[in-house]
Amino acid sequence: MSIKLTQSQVMLHQMVTDFADKEVKPLDILIDKQRNFPAELWDKFVNTGFLGLTIPEEYGGAGFDVIASSQTVYDFAVRNASIAFTLEGHYKSVDQVLKYGTTELKEKYLPQANNRIFGFSSTEPQGGSNVMGHTAKAVKEGDKWVLNGNKTMITNGGLAEVYCVLLKTSPTELSCFLVDEDMPGFKHGKRENFIGMNGTPIGEIFLENVIVSEEHLLGTVGQGVAIGDNAHYDARILMGAIAAGITEHALNIAIDYAKQREVKGEPITQLYSIQEKITEIAIAKENTQLLYQEAAKLKIAGKPYAKVATMAKSYGSRASYTAADHALQVLGGYGYSREYPVEHLLRDARALQLAEGSLEKMMIEIAKEVVSEGKE
Amino acid sequence: MSIKLTQSQVMLHQMVTDFADKEVKPLDILIDKQRNFPAELWDKFVNTGFLGLTIPEEYGGAGFDVIASSQTVYDFAVRNASIAFTLEGHYKSVDQVLKYGTTELKEKYLPQANNRIFGFSSTEPQGGSNVMGHTAKAVKEGDKWVLNGNKTMITNGGLAEVYCVLLKTSPTELSCFLVDEDMPGFKHGKRENFIGMNGTPIGEIFLENVIVSEEHLLGTVGQGVAIGDNAHYDARILMGAIAAGITEHALNIAIDYAKQREVKGEPITQLYSIQEKITEIAIAKENTQLLYQEAAKLKIAGKPYAKVATMAKSYGSRASYTAADHALQVLGGYGYSREYPVEHLLRDARALQLAEGSLEKMMIEIAKEVVSEGKE
Amino acid sequence: MSIKLTQSQVMLHQMVTDFADKEVKPLDILIDKQRNFPAELWDKFVNTGFLGLTIPEEYGGAGFDVIASSQTVYDFAVRNASIAFTLEGHYKSVDQVLKYGTTELKEKYLPQANNRIFGFSSTEPQGGSNVMGHTAKAVKEGDKWVLNGNKTMITNGGLAEVYCVLLKTSPTELSCFLVDEDMPGFKHGKRENFIGMNGTPIGEIFLENVIVSEEHLLGTVGQGVAIGDNAHYDARILMGAIAAGITEHALNIAIDYAKQREVKGEPITQLYSIQEKITEIAIAKENTQLLYQEAAKLKIAGKPYAKVATMAKSYGSRASYTAADHALQVLGGYGYSREYPVEHLLRDARALQLAEGSLEKMMIEIAKEVVSEGKE
Amino acid sequence: MSIKLTQSQVMLHQMVTDFADKEVKPLDILIDKQRNFPAELWDKFVNTGFLGLTIPEEYGGAGFDVIASSQTVYDFAVRNASIAFTLEGHYKSVDQVLKYGTTELKEKYLPQANNRIFGFSSTEPQGGSNVMGHTAKAVKEGDKWVLNGNKTMITNGGLAEVYCVLLKTSPTELSCFLVDEDMPGFKHGKRENFIGMNGTPIGEIFLENVIVSEEHLLGTVGQGVAIGDNAHYDARILMGAIAAGITEHALNIAIDYAKQREVKGEPITQLYSIQEKITEIAIAKENTQLLYQEAAKLKIAGKPYAKVATMAKSYGSRASYTAADHALQVLGGYGYSREYPVEHLLRDARALQLAEGSLEKMMIEIAKEVVSEGKE
Repeated sequence: MSIKLTQSQVMLHQMVTDFADKEVKPLDILIDKQRNFPAELWDKFVNTGFLGLTIPEEYGGAGFDVIASSQTVYDFAVRNASIAFTLEGHYKSVDQVLKYGTTELKEKYLPQANNRIFGFSSTEPQGGSNVMGHTAKAVKEGDKWVLNGNKTMITNGGLAEVYCVLLKTSPTELSCFLVDEDMPGFKHGKRENFIGMNGTPIGEIFLENVIVSEEHLLGTVGQGVAIGDNAHYDARILMGAIAAGITEHALNIAIDYAKQREVKGEPITQLYSIQEKITEIAIAKENTQLLYQEAAKLKIAGKPYAKVATMAKSYGSRASYTAADHALQVLGGYGYSREYPVEHLLRDARALQLAEGSLEKMMIEIAKEVVSEGKE
Repeated sequence: MSIKLTQSQVMLHQMVTDFADKEVKPLDILIDKQRNFPAELWDKFVNTGFLGLTIPEEYGGAGFDVIASSQTVYDFAVRNASIAFTLEGHYKSVDQVLKYGTTELKEKYLPQANNRIFGFSSTEPQGGSNVMGHTAKAVKEGDKWVLNGNKTMITNGGLAEVYCVLLKTSPTELSCFLVDEDMPGFKHGKRENFIGMNGTPIGEIFLENVIVSEEHLLGTVGQGVAIGDNAHYDARILMGAIAAGITEHALNIAIDYAKQREVKGEPITQLYSIQEKITEIAIAKENTQLLYQEAAKLKIAGKPYAKVATMAKSYGSRASYTAADHALQVLGGYGYSREYPVEHLLRDARALQLAEGSLEKMMIEIAKEVVSEGKE
Repeated sequence: MSIKLTQSQVMLHQMVTDFADKEVKPLDILIDKQRNFPAELWDKFVNTGFLGLTIPEEYGGAGFDVIASSQTVYDFAVRNASIAFTLEGHYKSVDQVLKYGTTELKEKYLPQANNRIFGFSSTEPQGGSNVMGHTAKAVKEGDKWVLNGNKTMITNGGLAEVYCVLLKTSPTELSCFLVDEDMPGFKHGKRENFIGMNGTPIGEIFLENVIVSEEHLLGTVGQGVAIGDNAHYDARILMGAIAAGITEHALNIAIDYAKQREVKGEPITQLYSIQEKITEIAIAKENTQLLYQEAAKLKIAGKPYAKVATMAKSYGSRASYTAADHALQVLGGYGYSREYPVEHLLRDARALQLAEGSLEKMMIEIAKEVVSEGKE
Repeated sequence: MSIKLTQSQVMLHQMVTDFADKEVKPLDILIDKQRNFPAELWDKFVNTGFLGLTIPEEYGGAGFDVIASSQTVYDFAVRNASIAFTLEGHYKSVDQVLKYGTTELKEKYLPQANNRIFGFSSTEPQGGSNVMGHTAKAVKEGDKWVLNGNKTMITNGGLAEVYCVLLKTSPTELSCFLVDEDMPGFKHGKRENFIGMNGTPIGEIFLENVIVSEEHLLGTVGQGVAIGDNAHYDARILMGAIAAGITEHALNIAIDYAKQREVKGEPITQLYSIQEKITEIAIAKENTQLLYQEAAKLKIAGKPYAKVATMAKSYGSRASYTAADHALQVLGGYGYSREYPVEHLLRDARALQLAEGSLEKMMIEIAKEVVSEGKE
């Protein structure tokens, strides 16, 4: 309840859970095994308008805020984590176009964002997430920018058609450009062979003399790091929502199993060893949800939300993993089987300690924030 | 920010922190060493009206709700945990009088509750917290009740002057009575020699043919367990607030120390081993605070709040203890010294896994709640 | 060093590590992906005599003790956990034949055990590991036993050709029989689709009027539970060795990676966040190894070893899992990839909290043992 | 059993446990409360010869090795941690005199070490354990050394009469000197007001123009760091023994209580929530003991033992603390009381993450050792 939804948010929530229950939930294991979203699901998903959730109505979207988008990401994550992860990658990218794009760019691309996936691209093969060690660059030639380099580890990489890309515009500066896969010189590279979040491809892109006009620059020259940070903080709210969703999914499975599984004639819900696992999962879910909702509320209120968003991601990434692990143990041998829907939760949740910044990076960032805040 | 305070709550918060900073904070270590609140502090505390915070204005109180009372308990706990613990013991008892008392009883006792401490008494020497194993009892004689037995482990026992007492009214029933230390046959027993929360006595009371009139019965005959449960749930919100306060206290001390402590010319806030501790403490505080505030909001909204209140207490009891432990380690040798204000936080926090129901009891209760809820 | 190897044990250890480095290590990922041991490897493995390690020389084996067999299991597990797991399943079964078999049975079957895999079969589909709830049974007819029922969750099930099987010989008694896949009425069932330990099949067997002679009874009628327990304790030493091996494997990978991976020009071995993970893994390995070696020494010395063997399994199962998880995090994105050899360690290690008795069962058993011991 | 004691070691062990059971165990809580060892106990302790345990027979000692001394420290620690801690401080100091002292020094001081406590002094008020930041120094004048400076955080500081002291002999060098409290210019400073290990004073010393002859230099000029390291590694074996002892103490108390405490007519040893705590404590004890014994065996075998000794200290320091905490929870309210012998175990164990090098320092050292070893 922490969050008080508006009337339209309540309706959205109802619509999302109906859709997800009917269209996504039954495909959860399939998506994991196939390593992509079935085309039919995808069409329905796009047609229903989920990609445009946060796009203002003037650009053909539904104009919802981050309370609604994080709720939606959560609602999907309870049924399948990777469709939520794909949404997260899309929303955070669209949000930067919305915030930093010129009017022309927004008029051109935001309507498309209702049915084309967007991605945000920062990491390079060598540089890790250390942005200043990057080599991909943008050079101004006349009134155009010429983009070169390659980028990896992009959420939705290969699935997305439009990318926000951080590129060096000077040895000490990064700037952010919007790049379309239709542009000459743009190529998708290979997909990472990761162990979880299997519906969502993580891939690379190559830019070879891709030429874009000035309005494809998001914000100003040199604002790349700021835009990247902003994308990160937005993303972390949604990553928290994914973590909470996975945790709730683990809770549902554990409870369903424990209720019907008996040992010596009694359901195992009577055993302390089961009870403590269920309780740990339930607390993890409550905490993660309260954290990401709090961050969303702070953002909407125009208050600093980076710290709490990072907490949602950091706490959630570990808590959801432990939750999935507890659920696996509750199911015993079934939990260890590929034929039951627990083990992929473990693999999915494990992504959250790495994607969008490692857990260790989160720990450092939070500490810095807290230390600089001083006491409350 | 999770909670949006009203204008009067904001003023209260300001007043509480001013008072606590000026009157309580400087005495934090002293209260621990002396094992009680200095009389002068206590007088100011009572005179300022903190005991009457939740008492309706018609009974001379300030009429605040649980949002305000939990905020107040938190604000005190940041400066000294045991003054917050004493408030918790008082508020939860007063709340039962308010909820279950007859009009006569309320008219007589609620005004007194503005300057006399109340306590809630359930545990017996033998029975642990297993209420049905109790032996203290109330027997109806004419239109009076005759109360006999002894009770232990009462928060504020000895400090409190008025007690809600659970007594057997039949072999299978408990009922709740309001007992005043001024009544003939009432005696205070010894204080427990506990290691922490040293301002707050935990003590026992003896009832020897204490005679009370019918209106001293709270609720109806047999309603004792329900009243006890209700007191517990109320208490757990406040216990969560204490946990959050201790955690914030630990955070403040750790940061203050780390900022000025240098190793090889750099403040230790640059060390990952310090950063991860600070971050863990900060997340613990955020989670605990969000949990108890959520429970308070649910309670005010008239929704079920037992599960989240129990989570606040359960999660907070462990998180605050770990937080104090991390802070101790940040301070190194100083942390291990009686002359620095960290080590008593560890002892104070340790109470929270035992007081108001053991951690294990909480784990079981939450699991049962969650299982019976089924999926969301 | 904890263990002092004899001359022949040192030679064995050398031989095993040479073999494992050359023949097993390069196939580690392949075995995981293929979900079985390549036939060529298997032939070499059997021909080199590893199956007969613990079989007395008079039966064509090498006559090594549990110090040697656990060292061997560990040495393999460092390179590939499932080949070690298959050995564990074999050794524990052969050991029961050796201990409880009649001379005729031993003369017939132990020589075969040098090149045929053995398995131990107890669990039933419904009964979990609660042996008295079983339904598979053996009925004496004349001087023969007629065996009926089905058994699941057998380590090496399908790969093994000979099985020790626990069967009911009365409503309250289990007895243990040696069954050969060549016997009429014996059928292998399906393999479990588990997530790890992929070289080792876990499968089921069906017995349909399988007729065996009296000497196929291990021990005496009704001794089944005792034999099962004995097999369990033996197995737990070897499970500890597997856990230690996986942990060492994780350590090697983490160190190799960390040594060459640089951030800002320095190897990440300089980062505390990496150091603490490496240290945790190293301590986990040392502890697990000391535990299983201690159990092995106790067993050889004829002293009670069940408690320490169970500790080796219990502690090792969690420690190896955490170790694999730490190693995954050290490798970052690479750790999360199917193309690097870390993620399957996580899946392999996860089996150890379930196979040969759940972690929870271990916790209870150890507590009972410790409580009944009283103080030392 | 991990360790095989010789005949004389078995006799020693018997003697130690008899003495400790009779003389130390009954005073355990008293020592904590009084903050020192009663004089009568101390006389018996010294007269029985425990201080001279590791001193060669030619110097009037008993000539035992580190297997025996660590066993003895453990045996005492099971009854009272601080008497073991005082022994640790003494043994590690005596061992450096034995290893690095000149013949004259050994002839003069080792016989005294049978009844005078020794201490090892390194830390300075400002420098933490960063030895090169120290200011206390030794200056050669003629054939004498003049010693000046003050040292803090000395185990046995104030109780010890003779000290090994690390002093700067050049801006980049430390050397180690033996200093006697009888020397002119030597003064004891104040005792730290620590929360645990209350029998053992941690104190400071002041050197004001203390003049010593050349043979009071241990080893050679500049060898101070090496001697300090050596003392540390020796100490860590004994610190592991203390940790194991505290853990065993916690186990004994928890079991004794759990066996007689009933809930609903059954001893709480039947509850999983109790069983898992008992098991965790028992595993912690087994691991810690195996680690320190392994380090002792390696040392005696002349093999590198620093890594395992550091593991014993590092693992043991956390495990014993958690063990004490579990035991406290098993005892519930009694555990939280000053009148029961659990809560001081928590305070005693907490010292081990700080004394003889912080936990974080241990973690770094082990990682470095492991990384430099490469694979096994």
